[in-house]
Amino acid sequence: MRTSFFNFFNKCIPMNQIVGWLDFIDYACFSNSFCFVEIEQPISGFAVAKVVDSGHPDFKKGDLVWGRRVGWEEYSLVTTPECLFKIHHTDVPLSYYTGILGMPGITAYFGFYDICSPKKGERVYVSAASGAVGQLVGQIAKLMGCYVVGSAGSKEKVELLKSKFGFDDAFNYKEEHDFDVALKRYFPEGIDIYFENVGGKMLDAVLLNMRFRGRIAACGMISQYNLHQPETIQNLTNIVYKRIRLEGFVVVDYFDQYSKFLDFILPCIREGKIVYVEDIAEGLESGPAALIGLFSGRNIGKQVVKVTDE
Amino acid sequence: MRTSFFNFFNKCIPMNQIVGWLDFIDYACFSNSFCFVEIEQPISGFAVAKVVDSGHPDFKKGDLVWGRRVGWEEYSLVTTPECLFKIHHTDVPLSYYTGILGMPGITAYFGFYDICSPKKGERVYVSAASGAVGQLVGQIAKLMGCYVVGSAGSKEKVELLKSKFGFDDAFNYKEEHDFDVALKRYFPEGIDIYFENVGGKMLDAVLLNMRFRGRIAACGMISQYNLHQPETIQNLTNIVYKRIRLEGFVVVDYFDQYSKFLDFILPCIREGKIVYVEDIAEGLESGPAALIGLFSGRNIGKQVVKVTDE
Repeated sequence: MRTSFFNFFNKCIPMNQIVGWLDFIDYACFSNSFCFVEIEQPISGFAVAKVVDSGHPDFKKGDLVWGRRVGWEEYSLVTTPECLFKIHHTDVPLSYYTGILGMPGITAYFGFYDICSPKKGERVYVSAASGAVGQLVGQIAKLMGCYVVGSAGSKEKVELLKSKFGFDDAFNYKEEHDFDVALKRYFPEGIDIYFENVGGKMLDAVLLNMRFRGRIAACGMISQYNLHQPETIQNLTNIVYKRIRLEGFVVVDYFDQYSKFLDFILPCIREGKIVYVEDIAEGLESGPAALIGLFSGRNIGKQVVKVTDE
Repeated sequence: MRTSFFNFFNKCIPMNQIVGWLDFIDYACFSNSFCFVEIEQPISGFAVAKVVDSGHPDFKKGDLVWGRRVGWEEYSLVTTPECLFKIHHTDVPLSYYTGILGMPGITAYFGFYDICSPKKGERVYVSAASGAVGQLVGQIAKLMGCYVVGSAGSKEKVELLKSKFGFDDAFNYKEEHDFDVALKRYFPEGIDIYFENVGGKMLDAVLLNMRFRGRIAACGMISQYNLHQPETIQNLTNIVYKRIRLEGFVVVDYFDQYSKFLDFILPCIREGKIVYVEDIAEGLESGPAALIGLFSGRNIGKQVVKVTDE
């Protein structure tokens, strides 16, 4: 789907009167990169929506879509059709298109396969592991035959990682006084792959525990976004002599491979090989509190807002 | 050349009575990784030497070699033949095998081509640019059609970079109060490739100035090796949203491709396309002071010690 130069008045609803899901962990992740918040304008983020009117040849009334640059509002005028994907598979929950079938899913899949270059049997550590991306990375890594440990911020989340997502082990980082000690407990032989979602002190401790030729996919550093002064890192020399590769990536670079991703993930969902957990806040009015909750880890699973019932 | 299981009493001289070169920037670079200093034993490093006796079938008396794990001494007993390369080309100065034709040359060549994935026209920044590796990286990048700026620690070195090594520009980092400001002056559009030799504050400033999909080859972080508490880095979130790749590498991983490297570098030297500058300390007794001088940047070009004249 490319930018159209025709007049485009594709009115999309974030499922108003039908089903509305607003997704804003994505907004949070990219708040300091390529998303913008205009004063007195709705916050823009990812959403699942239904087309109610369209002047664009690729979209017609009734089409289901997911994509970015949709406002936190009941009805949206979308002028960036290149940011929308049509939804063709509706035998799975529509809200999944804000998560496992949308941006976080693509992030987990390509971040893990493309950036981490995983091999069977390798030792994988995932931080923020119960979040939308983390829970998928862990399950994909398990499907590949890796040893996977995740960290999260509550006993409930840790239990979820082990019982529902099949992680080999998990720990509550809030109960650990020394991340280095914690990581050595779960990875006595070191970490081959770190899927980085948090940054800061955790990254610093991970660097001490990486194995030779380890790979770190820098997906996000959520612990740092709201700090006036970011936490500092002091163990970067490990990158040199351990030949570590630390690489950032952004999901939009993989959007053109969306169909390849769907070919992988849809059968996994249908066959129950990969499960998915969401934390659904009801109603637009619950959005601000849910957004703020992300930064203290209040949510369990992917945080979405249901704008309206179907 | 593989480890031999035969008795091996290959006596090598670091060119005693002939020519002796001891190379210890390499020792310095790897002092906290895989080199060891035993109390009351000679420091071990890279050297050029002549075989005076050998029980190994691959070496015979009179062979010239270069390699690592040779002591800072006039005569050495070498028990690790897998760490030696035979010297076949003697139309170039023998000391070059401690530098442009040895470990630093291999480091510059593979570090730049393999880790940096350079493209013609890209903007390249090299720190510690007048050192053995840096001066080569800059020249190789220029041969490829890149725009190259280097930093060094004195006016004399900066002049050398511009006049002798053909860098597009260069600056004295000791005269800069704010590395971020300095880098913006030389790279108003940002840096595509950073060949990292120093670490610390310079790396932190570079992160602010990298372009999207930039690459950082972490070759060394010499500014950090002697600190009890390493300098901290706070701009790592740039790695995420700029899709930066920061990758460490160690030259020994490329030793099996030495002949490929020679095929590239020897014609460049003979045709004058690449020049090389050494800082030669005379006599073993000058070694300690020269080693210490590395950490304050006293040397100009590759620091070697001539053990004896030919």
